[in-house]
Amino acid sequence: MPDQLVDCVPNFSEGRRPDVIAAIRDAVGAVAGVRVLDLHADADHNRSVLTYVVPVPRAVESGLAAAKAALAHIDLRTHEGAHPRMGALDVFPFVPLFELPMAACVELANELGRAIASELGVPVYLYEEAARRPDRVNLENIRKGGFETLLSVLPSDPDRAPDFGPSVVHPTAGAVAVGARRPLIAFNVYLGTAEPALAKAIAKAVRHSSGGLRYVKALGLEIPESGTTQVSMNLTNFKSTSIVRVMDLIRAEAARWGVPVLRSEVVGLIPLDAMLDAAQAFLQLREFSRDQVLERRLLSE
Amino acid sequence: MPDQLVDCVPNFSEGRRPDVIAAIRDAVGAVAGVRVLDLHADADHNRSVLTYVVPVPRAVESGLAAAKAALAHIDLRTHEGAHPRMGALDVFPFVPLFELPMAACVELANELGRAIASELGVPVYLYEEAARRPDRVNLENIRKGGFETLLSVLPSDPDRAPDFGPSVVHPTAGAVAVGARRPLIAFNVYLGTAEPALAKAIAKAVRHSSGGLRYVKALGLEIPESGTTQVSMNLTNFKSTSIVRVMDLIRAEAARWGVPVLRSEVVGLIPLDAMLDAAQAFLQLREFSRDQVLERRLLSE
Repeated sequence: MPDQLVDCVPNFSEGRRPDVIAAIRDAVGAVAGVRVLDLHADADHNRSVLTYVVPVPRAVESGLAAAKAALAHIDLRTHEGAHPRMGALDVFPFVPLFELPMAACVELANELGRAIASELGVPVYLYEEAARRPDRVNLENIRKGGFETLLSVLPSDPDRAPDFGPSVVHPTAGAVAVGARRPLIAFNVYLGTAEPALAKAIAKAVRHSSGGLRYVKALGLEIPESGTTQVSMNLTNFKSTSIVRVMDLIRAEAARWGVPVLRSEVVGLIPLDAMLDAAQAFLQLREFSRDQVLERRLLSE
Repeated sequence: MPDQLVDCVPNFSEGRRPDVIAAIRDAVGAVAGVRVLDLHADADHNRSVLTYVVPVPRAVESGLAAAKAALAHIDLRTHEGAHPRMGALDVFPFVPLFELPMAACVELANELGRAIASELGVPVYLYEEAARRPDRVNLENIRKGGFETLLSVLPSDPDRAPDFGPSVVHPTAGAVAVGARRPLIAFNVYLGTAEPALAKAIAKAVRHSSGGLRYVKALGLEIPESGTTQVSMNLTNFKSTSIVRVMDLIRAEAARWGVPVLRSEVVGLIPLDAMLDAAQAFLQLREFSRDQVLERRLLSE
């Protein structure tokens, strides 16, 4: 495998029409080297999330194929759904795989942004690690008000001018946020208590917003009729805030309340390196090269 | 990656002449699809271990290339070394990767054995999972006395007749054991005690031969001048005796003596699934599909 791979997670504003969802997936899948890993369609949100990997030299081509297919099949004027959105292709993040530097993903975001703007006439905002302004790191700031608000305010509000393309939204495809980000891990821990207050207290202790670990978002949730509760988390940067630290802290907090940790779950995909972090912790492997993992060498060499 | 892969770990009776070792490695590496992962030469043993992976349809061809190269470059009549051996290519195990069944490796061992016997006139013994007789499961039974003994006893002792090929050893290349086996993990755990007696007691508790875990071989060793000792292990079937159980048992035994577990190490390569076992244990992931590991899907699909 000579070329480095990048992970792409485009979000589309279509979660109900299977033919359209399949057409977009197939348009991306037709680009040489693309391997589709996951496609999750949500009818309530009327939104789909495609996960695929592609060699870096083909990444912009694949992203442009995604944008073109979305533009061809989705008309935001008639789109309704529970999830905020501003574009047919709404969000396109590049996520590093293996040793690919974040800077390479930022570069891809810039190239794809320029291509979407110039070839399709759709305004593009760079977000998260690719953001050029601090207030555009957070996607929600860019998308505020959604397609309908942007339609009216974009031409007259210089503060909302896109990073690439016209200062007017595309009449049917809207605008798109292209960016680069760390892989996200959706990680839930089940607690042997029916008291939501305890799950909420543990979530509060572990999450960044209330003083906990920097790259953790967490909620304490009831799991009705199960006698259990859950700490539901997003780990937004597992390289800096290891899943090992998260588990250690939850165990310590739960133990203080006499609450057993029953089990945990990963929703969707998890990067191999996060699993190897956990394995190294369990096995107390101090000096360990990840190239010692036989199958990993088949990928990274 | 359309074809399933198999791991091959041929052992050669040459650990001193770099040009010969390189020539054998290159002969194997020239077979289409072969990826050499590791080459370990030991001058004292006068022996080398090559580790490579190859798509199953090319596996027999690659093994035959290994046998031919060894025959061309090694003359056992002048070979000396500390390690027991009976062949120029001494041992050739096929090891399953990913979902490849052991039965496929046994079939490969049979095909390669037949090919080596018929094309090179070298007698072949099938061992371990490929053995046709219970007394040939253990390689040491087959190799007893080495090349020199086999030279004289093989023609007259029907009990030592090979599974394939002539009942006379090849004059320079000897005989070869071809087999199928589980991946082997060389795993050492360091203890915070200078007393070898404690390391030996823990090794005894954990190893199969003295009543411990079925697929564990273990020795307690002194690590001079470090103030530590080591439980040095081979895990011969990590699917049945998980590295998680091994670590749990060592921790429990060490705790009983008030001995801290300092760290551990993997010597050489470790299969991804063993690391994922440890990660699942640490994270308490009860329901988890290994296809949720993003990079693993790139290999196994």
